[in-house]
Amino acid sequence: MSATISQQTLPQKAADAIIRLIRTQNYAAGTKLPNEYELSRMLNVSRNTVREAIKLLVSRNILEVRRGAGTFVSDKQGLGDDPLGLSMIVDQPRLYRDLMQVRLLTEPKCAAFAAQYATPEDIGKLQLLVSEPEDLLHNNTLNTVNDAAFHLHISHCSGNMVLYNINTAIYNRLTQQDAPIAVSGKKQLLTDHLRIFQAIRRHDSCGAYDAMLAHLMHHQEQLPEDGFPLSDQMD
Amino acid sequence: MSATISQQTLPQKAADAIIRLIRTQNYAAGTKLPNEYELSRMLNVSRNTVREAIKLLVSRNILEVRRGAGTFVSDKQGLGDDPLGLSMIVDQPRLYRDLMQVRLLTEPKCAAFAAQYATPEDIGKLQLLVSEPEDLLHNNTLNTVNDAAFHLHISHCSGNMVLYNINTAIYNRLTQQDAPIAVSGKKQLLTDHLRIFQAIRRHDSCGAYDAMLAHLMHHQEQLPEDGFPLSDQMD
Repeated sequence: MSATISQQTLPQKAADAIIRLIRTQNYAAGTKLPNEYELSRMLNVSRNTVREAIKLLVSRNILEVRRGAGTFVSDKQGLGDDPLGLSMIVDQPRLYRDLMQVRLLTEPKCAAFAAQYATPEDIGKLQLLVSEPEDLLHNNTLNTVNDAAFHLHISHCSGNMVLYNINTAIYNRLTQQDAPIAVSGKKQLLTDHLRIFQAIRRHDSCGAYDAMLAHLMHHQEQLPEDGFPLSDQMD
Repeated sequence: MSATISQQTLPQKAADAIIRLIRTQNYAAGTKLPNEYELSRMLNVSRNTVREAIKLLVSRNILEVRRGAGTFVSDKQGLGDDPLGLSMIVDQPRLYRDLMQVRLLTEPKCAAFAAQYATPEDIGKLQLLVSEPEDLLHNNTLNTVNDAAFHLHISHCSGNMVLYNINTAIYNRLTQQDAPIAVSGKKQLLTDHLRIFQAIRRHDSCGAYDAMLAHLMHHQEQLPEDGFPLSDQMD
């Protein structure tokens, strides 16, 4: 459980106050924060405490310091490079199995939500992500990063920010290798993505759910018996 | 996407090497790391780089420094206090709706996995978490922290480490207020928890799935129309 208020150090309390400031003022990513002096006055703490608080928030990917320019709200939205601590899970085949279980659990419904809530703008962007891989197939450079961009945009279309953050963490891990997708799997992938896209475009939640589930099952069939060779890069 | 290897600074590379060391040596939480001098020799980098790498890993909750004693593997397993960046989501009723959607999506199947994989030891611990609240009902101190402990232990029993980490992040957020549960909801909660526990104990995956789904729906019925007052503490 997280530390209760009374156990917090001064810099931690100041960091929480800065988060509240960002939220109540609706500061978007890229917004410049008041300078150290102003923050110290606004929060009624020393400049040293402000500096320590900013360091904490930089380490949490909530703020970023651009040298000579000031302190800004980070576009990482507080999401770390490995927010779920996946790099600490030792058993790599098990990690991959667990990641696939979570994808099977969340992504079909994610696609169903996307069919329900996607705006015309969302659908336009999804179409680009469907047609792009077709070119990549001919260039032989289709890889997991392109695949991840398609799936992540569907999480975005779902309208559920928590699901989007969870899937960002999962795909950050899965794309660390940037491994090429086997040729035999590429055509299936393109057919599957197109089917998912079409269901989302016609706002067919059940169709999107089923198309995503089928896609994940096809993906799983392509894998070796003991799962994905995640360990290749790591050890 | 995460930074590719070539973009990494020396301390980041050293940090990755330390993570590999922890993983290949199977260092458990609480294990003491070799000292700065030894690490610098093992990783073939300067002691200054080792110090910077350790700072990075402390900020990621992978290591902890105990003054005068050395550097240890943290029992937080690399999971931050707010790993999914939930404190940065401004729209609080929407955040709560999104969290409930994710719980509805993941927890019934989590309970089904638990029924399939829970060991006798797991079931023993779950029983304690079911009987404990009964005492708390009489003491009038049953709160969201007790509730969270029950749900988190089920995630643990599921055998899926990724699901466990996701649920830890979600419950860290939900228990920040440590709000008491309304009396009207308490008896329902105890009945629901008991039913979930019994299904898991008899390894009845379908029963556990349904009991968890019913429990989450009961919980949702207790909430005000616009969701949980998460904003109370935050603004």
